[in-house]
Amino acid sequence: MSKKFVNKLEETVDDALFGLVSSNKDVELCKNSNRVVHLSQLDLKTVSLIAGGGSGHEPYAAGYVGKGLLTAAVAGNVFASPPSRNVQAALEVTKGEAGAILFVINYTGDRLNFGLAAERFNASGGNAKVVTIADDLAIDNPNSRVGRRGLAGAVLTIKIAGAMSEEGKSLDEIYEMSHKVAKSLGTLGVSLYPGSLPGKNRETELPIDQIEVGLGIHGEPGKFRAPYECAHKIITGLMGTIQVKMEMKKSEKFVVLVNNLGSVSQLEMGIVNGEVLRWFADQKIEITRFYSGTYMTSLDGHGISVTVMRADDLMIRYLDAPATAPGWIPSFSVGEVREVTREPSEARNITEISSSGISLNAELVRGCLDGVVKSMLDSEDELNKLDAEAGDGDCGSTFAGAARAIQASQKAKELDFEQPETLLKQLSVIFEQTVGGTSGALYALMFSSAAQEIHDIVDSNTILEALKKANQAVQKYGGARVGDRTMVDSLDAMVEELSKGLKENQGLDVFERAVQVGSETKSEHSIFYVRSFGEERRTASERAAEDTANQKASVGRASYTSSESQTKPDAGATAISLWLRAFWTAFKQEMGKK
Amino acid sequence: MSKKFVNKLEETVDDALFGLVSSNKDVELCKNSNRVVHLSQLDLKTVSLIAGGGSGHEPYAAGYVGKGLLTAAVAGNVFASPPSRNVQAALEVTKGEAGAILFVINYTGDRLNFGLAAERFNASGGNAKVVTIADDLAIDNPNSRVGRRGLAGAVLTIKIAGAMSEEGKSLDEIYEMSHKVAKSLGTLGVSLYPGSLPGKNRETELPIDQIEVGLGIHGEPGKFRAPYECAHKIITGLMGTIQVKMEMKKSEKFVVLVNNLGSVSQLEMGIVNGEVLRWFADQKIEITRFYSGTYMTSLDGHGISVTVMRADDLMIRYLDAPATAPGWIPSFSVGEVREVTREPSEARNITEISSSGISLNAELVRGCLDGVVKSMLDSEDELNKLDAEAGDGDCGSTFAGAARAIQASQKAKELDFEQPETLLKQLSVIFEQTVGGTSGALYALMFSSAAQEIHDIVDSNTILEALKKANQAVQKYGGARVGDRTMVDSLDAMVEELSKGLKENQGLDVFERAVQVGSETKSEHSIFYVRSFGEERRTASERAAEDTANQKASVGRASYTSSESQTKPDAGATAISLWLRAFWTAFKQEMGKK
Repeated sequence: MSKKFVNKLEETVDDALFGLVSSNKDVELCKNSNRVVHLSQLDLKTVSLIAGGGSGHEPYAAGYVGKGLLTAAVAGNVFASPPSRNVQAALEVTKGEAGAILFVINYTGDRLNFGLAAERFNASGGNAKVVTIADDLAIDNPNSRVGRRGLAGAVLTIKIAGAMSEEGKSLDEIYEMSHKVAKSLGTLGVSLYPGSLPGKNRETELPIDQIEVGLGIHGEPGKFRAPYECAHKIITGLMGTIQVKMEMKKSEKFVVLVNNLGSVSQLEMGIVNGEVLRWFADQKIEITRFYSGTYMTSLDGHGISVTVMRADDLMIRYLDAPATAPGWIPSFSVGEVREVTREPSEARNITEISSSGISLNAELVRGCLDGVVKSMLDSEDELNKLDAEAGDGDCGSTFAGAARAIQASQKAKELDFEQPETLLKQLSVIFEQTVGGTSGALYALMFSSAAQEIHDIVDSNTILEALKKANQAVQKYGGARVGDRTMVDSLDAMVEELSKGLKENQGLDVFERAVQVGSETKSEHSIFYVRSFGEERRTASERAAEDTANQKASVGRASYTSSESQTKPDAGATAISLWLRAFWTAFKQEMGKK
Repeated sequence: MSKKFVNKLEETVDDALFGLVSSNKDVELCKNSNRVVHLSQLDLKTVSLIAGGGSGHEPYAAGYVGKGLLTAAVAGNVFASPPSRNVQAALEVTKGEAGAILFVINYTGDRLNFGLAAERFNASGGNAKVVTIADDLAIDNPNSRVGRRGLAGAVLTIKIAGAMSEEGKSLDEIYEMSHKVAKSLGTLGVSLYPGSLPGKNRETELPIDQIEVGLGIHGEPGKFRAPYECAHKIITGLMGTIQVKMEMKKSEKFVVLVNNLGSVSQLEMGIVNGEVLRWFADQKIEITRFYSGTYMTSLDGHGISVTVMRADDLMIRYLDAPATAPGWIPSFSVGEVREVTREPSEARNITEISSSGISLNAELVRGCLDGVVKSMLDSEDELNKLDAEAGDGDCGSTFAGAARAIQASQKAKELDFEQPETLLKQLSVIFEQTVGGTSGALYALMFSSAAQEIHDIVDSNTILEALKKANQAVQKYGGARVGDRTMVDSLDAMVEELSKGLKENQGLDVFERAVQVGSETKSEHSIFYVRSFGEERRTASERAAEDTANQKASVGRASYTSSESQTKPDAGATAISLWLRAFWTAFKQEMGKK
């Protein structure tokens, strides 16, 4: 039995109707229910339009009661025709001067119960006509007397009739037009999984490698089964059959409705829509109106149906007329079928990055970068080990990969060592494109932000401002703060120290000290409860509380905070301190050469 | 691996975007795609509103690009953040005079990639601000720095921003308002089954007796699991948590959005809507606007989320403003929460049926009915056996049940033997209510139609007209014709014979002969290919062809038409002939008594 959002099974339909009338003051239920939903404000001068049948096909039919659509709807039990007396109740409550039309989707039970209601209603002075919709192209012989099953074409039929009634057209006019519309329609469905009734399993089990073609809306088997294939092949096959059965020809025009049978994801519906539209474009058959959505379901059936309709201008005018029923989704505005670029967009070529920034001694800059790159390669194992304690153990490898990507760009002479602003932007792109993931994005963000502070001169203050900006950006978008056991800890400590030293005019020694502080920071918060980046972190007070928990754990109580993972420095914080130290060491060496 | 409507997995997102832009000429894709969908007609004087993130949440975000909503959307791979350069492409293509807002639903990858794009865009002269939506009430501490996850509250936020941009409001005004809206929102989700990625199985397997509470939109586990219960209990629990977290109080007013996570059937959505509305009514908390539909999915997740929002009049005005994006479903018009009558409507009391028809000799009528009832009881086994050959073998029992129901009504003195019109209507109701199904409906229809012909006198001609009318009604609504091996065969033969005899003035002997003919007819078509009632039947020419096939089968070829089931008379046709004979026999006896 599959799980569902239901209460008592026998009250499923009443519960659903309750939801409908409670959320929509335009409609209400008949006195004594009868499972009849009708307009709250009945216009007794226009023709009453009534549809219905078994439940499980929502929004059909009750979801279409509204201005410009149905006057009333009658709901049976799930997949069972409503009793004739309930249909008659719908006729009685909407009885006006202009007569009524009952729309029946062609199934024996509905045909009989709606027919009986019409006969009795007419026998007692009413004036009701019955329009039967039988659009299922899977039934071979449309002229057989029982005829095709009724499917989603009913929605287009009632939409047109609704607009006509709204305009005050007569019973005969609407009846004639409805017949004309019903005859101009054809529908074919395909399903990957049938729906399942509340409290039951699926009606039929479909093998994992098969699909059902030409099915109704009651979870029953289709006309035949076919192998499961890609959406393109499924839709092409479906449309090919529709084309033959409807004798569709080049340059003809059609209204098209793609119907979700219940549980097709929106992502898939986009793909299905695309395949249907592409098929029409390929066949050079024009689409005048395109509808796509959940119009008539088979509970939670994982399938779709396509309805095509030869519509004249009048029919289209009625389709376009406004309607306000909750189930009604108006036509999309079809455009030309445009090709989509399927290749991923070109990777950014870093040699195209430029800036109007100042020039620096290229040798000095290159020397500093070389020092950092060497450090990234050398510390691969150490960082991996640290990361393995709390994360997935690939931090070192990630940065070693980044280092190799930088070396490759350098070898290709792509890096601009003369313009530090350009170089920072280039490094940002390398980290984004080559490293990827959270680390790549954070480093890219760091370099990109730092680049914004490199304007006219590069000196101690510029470097501080660039580091500050990088630190801010990482905190702003990454969400981590000092004490969260991340790269921010090292970065922030370095910035603070540098900031203090520069204010106190300590000269270049301030860098020596700042690197030292950044490096020490990496283990400062090592007893914090560790969570992987991107998850929730604690406030300072909560961390303090956690420290207490740790102390308690140390006297013997088992605790999730007692693992070794909290005793080692964070890999990301360590990495930052290593790069900063490597940078400073290389800088000193280069200055020494001068 | 679950079946899906997809093509090459790596092209899933491109295929879906193709479907969107092909069906909607208001939007198009960026040159080189970048998976950026933007308005075809960009208004460079208004603030650009851009949202996005991983795919699989459709219609969010690309389905909201449209007038009065988003200017552009960026789609990543399924459940993966789009690369920063694609976000930047969206900023570049929509770059105008008024600046841009990036709406980010709060996940690390999105925060970083959108943040990086904004930084780079601003570094090159742009003016973009980032609004982060973090409405997941399942995350305990809203003030933690990484914060709550972003959920369907994003849809209300972008709707309000969209209406403001459409009105020409400034970047700062929209930014301020968006922050205010984002802070006034809370969302909580519950799921029965997680969604599944194309080409993969479900992310997590949820036991059949458990549900996931407080989940995100990536198929990940929720905050906790709870036992699977009825919809009422699930929604009451969910709303209770929301109430506490949002500190909702009596007589406060809220905007409410019920979101289908992907594959909840429309029937269930009706039930969920009802439960949410009932909860608000019970708590005496007012709903100012009610949204329900598929706004932000987790692929084909079988779950829902409820978003509540404290909205001031201005926010509501912006929510109500028109918007034309395909994903946008406007608010329902909530009415009062009305009780639904849960009892089935009262069965019709047949003593209340009356008519203005003529009176007949009650004893004669009673005698005829008794004769028919006796025949119905006596032939139970015979009809069951005949039915077992082609149907489900309960035809005789069905009619015996009807006979007993008639006897019960007779015993209760409910039947009006003096007025044949009334009696026929009473029999119609007994067959509908007691017998049910196809047989019950057809007999009810037959009696109801016959009653329409009983006006001033009852004589041979009246009886003929009543039988004709019954025959027509059964053919009209039942769909069967002569030769289809149904009750129509006997009925029609009887009518034809009676019609001919009355024209030739044969007196009462015509009835004798008509009954004889009706009785013979039952086996006339016995070699026809048998299908149960309600299925497709053949035209005369096709039947002739089938007869040929039979002949071939008789010379040794195996054929589906060679089974014994085609050699026995049809149970329904036989039944009619039995009742008519019984009626005539009883009539003769009663007349003899006189």
